[in-house]
Amino acid sequence: MNRLIKDVFQKHFSNEILNLMEDSAVFGVPSCKLAFTTDSFVVNPLFFPGGDIGKMAVCGTVNDLLMRGATPKYLSAGFILEDGLEIDTLERIAQSMQNAAAEANVSIVAGDTKVIEGSGGVYINTSGIGILETPLEISSHNALPGDAVIVSGNLGNHHACILSRRMGIENSIKSDCAPLREMVLNMLNGGINIHAMRDITRGGLATVLYEIAEASAAGIEIPGGLSFADTEVQGFCEILGLDPLTMGNEGKLVAVVPAEEAEKAVKIMKASKYGGDAQIIGKVCVSHRPVV
Amino acid sequence: MNRLIKDVFQKHFSNEILNLMEDSAVFGVPSCKLAFTTDSFVVNPLFFPGGDIGKMAVCGTVNDLLMRGATPKYLSAGFILEDGLEIDTLERIAQSMQNAAAEANVSIVAGDTKVIEGSGGVYINTSGIGILETPLEISSHNALPGDAVIVSGNLGNHHACILSRRMGIENSIKSDCAPLREMVLNMLNGGINIHAMRDITRGGLATVLYEIAEASAAGIEIPGGLSFADTEVQGFCEILGLDPLTMGNEGKLVAVVPAEEAEKAVKIMKASKYGGDAQIIGKVCVSHRPVV
Repeated sequence: MNRLIKDVFQKHFSNEILNLMEDSAVFGVPSCKLAFTTDSFVVNPLFFPGGDIGKMAVCGTVNDLLMRGATPKYLSAGFILEDGLEIDTLERIAQSMQNAAAEANVSIVAGDTKVIEGSGGVYINTSGIGILETPLEISSHNALPGDAVIVSGNLGNHHACILSRRMGIENSIKSDCAPLREMVLNMLNGGINIHAMRDITRGGLATVLYEIAEASAAGIEIPGGLSFADTEVQGFCEILGLDPLTMGNEGKLVAVVPAEEAEKAVKIMKASKYGGDAQIIGKVCVSHRPVV
Repeated sequence: MNRLIKDVFQKHFSNEILNLMEDSAVFGVPSCKLAFTTDSFVVNPLFFPGGDIGKMAVCGTVNDLLMRGATPKYLSAGFILEDGLEIDTLERIAQSMQNAAAEANVSIVAGDTKVIEGSGGVYINTSGIGILETPLEISSHNALPGDAVIVSGNLGNHHACILSRRMGIENSIKSDCAPLREMVLNMLNGGINIHAMRDITRGGLATVLYEIAEASAAGIEIPGGLSFADTEVQGFCEILGLDPLTMGNEGKLVAVVPAEEAEKAVKIMKASKYGGDAQIIGKVCVSHRPVV
């Protein structure tokens, strides 16, 4: 176990805090508001077009921190390895995690490894700490009637990619797995007064919008006729009877912002990595019950 | 999933931060040093004399924070549930986690739940944040020749308990699973200048002492003739050819302190919960290689 940790995890994640290999990582923070989140990743297959379980584990937690307006700083990584997992596979995953961490400008400072019976799989938990450097209180509870609803890109790619691999369907659909640090920090630095923001993961846009409507005691209007998916994803969905609005993504967000700032916010998203297809999709409205 | 989270986790863990149910928890901290740690728990059976996987998951992470001298504050809990897990079982685990969290004076502020194929098991990751309120730099690297080595109690109980249950052996051995908050904070508040401290988990005292010796570039001398285990655990070990010094514990620590403070430290431990059997077991010495 000692050798595994040194030869795989410490080798790839190496940084001053982690390398002390103590019972917990210690680092200084200024007087501030912290964001703290956790997520476990159990994706199968472990590797897929556009990403892998390691990239997902870093991006998912980084994005959860960003959704409150926090700048992601430190991650932990807890590995549950099944018997029979190849060390080479684990090394590829660790390398991929480090690449994603470098892009998101976070350090993996704490780790843990357990081994269970099984058949060569791996589960990863990442927890993350970010620092709120904005005075904004971004929360699902803070959407206001009149606000614009913006989606950062087309939907369904991750879900359609994983499903295609599991069903043995050949196509060129790639997961959208990505860290949204640049996009979110560009909006905050650009002075956008974001009211609510969520990454569009499990349950898809429909679920996330409903949760915002419920938390904010409002309605959300989406006009008909909008396109939410890439052509190939749309075709895939039509064949299988799926709806991109209920499918999971790993690199997309929905932002609720004051109407007068919506055009500027979309412009900033479009100029940011992973935001090329950003669009305004609707608005928040007065409603006596949460309805989308 | 929404109902499961509300009816089980939010019900038992309820607190102001968690209840917002946002993508990440947000709370204020003063300018300080933070401790951050993660641990995954895969114990089988889920329930055993003296504890269960939920109590272990809280105590393990709380203790890892304490070992750097940090006061534990916030925990996250990531659940991986196998198909077929009874909701009643999960409720018992959540209740047990909340009981341990209350004793350790920490709040569970962030959570995540995933479901995998399987046969009714559960894996839990907890990550934790603590605040260093002591100026001490407690680290495995800081043991000094002449320092006393103190163990907080008898060893092997958790390991012997789990093994007994798995082998169907009847005895009255209980896991020592416990949060060591009171003991550690009593030592810090009592002015003990702890140099190094570790909880004695996987690998047992032998492994932990070797890691301290290696990190501090020193040796550790333990005289012969000491007793390290309760009578029943000692008997169990002799029958199976096990050694309490290499067995895992879930509520024991080893502290390395200046020799002149050792008696006082033992007195404080003995007066603290879970420290009744504390004893000085040896000393740090000059050595050209890490040896115990």
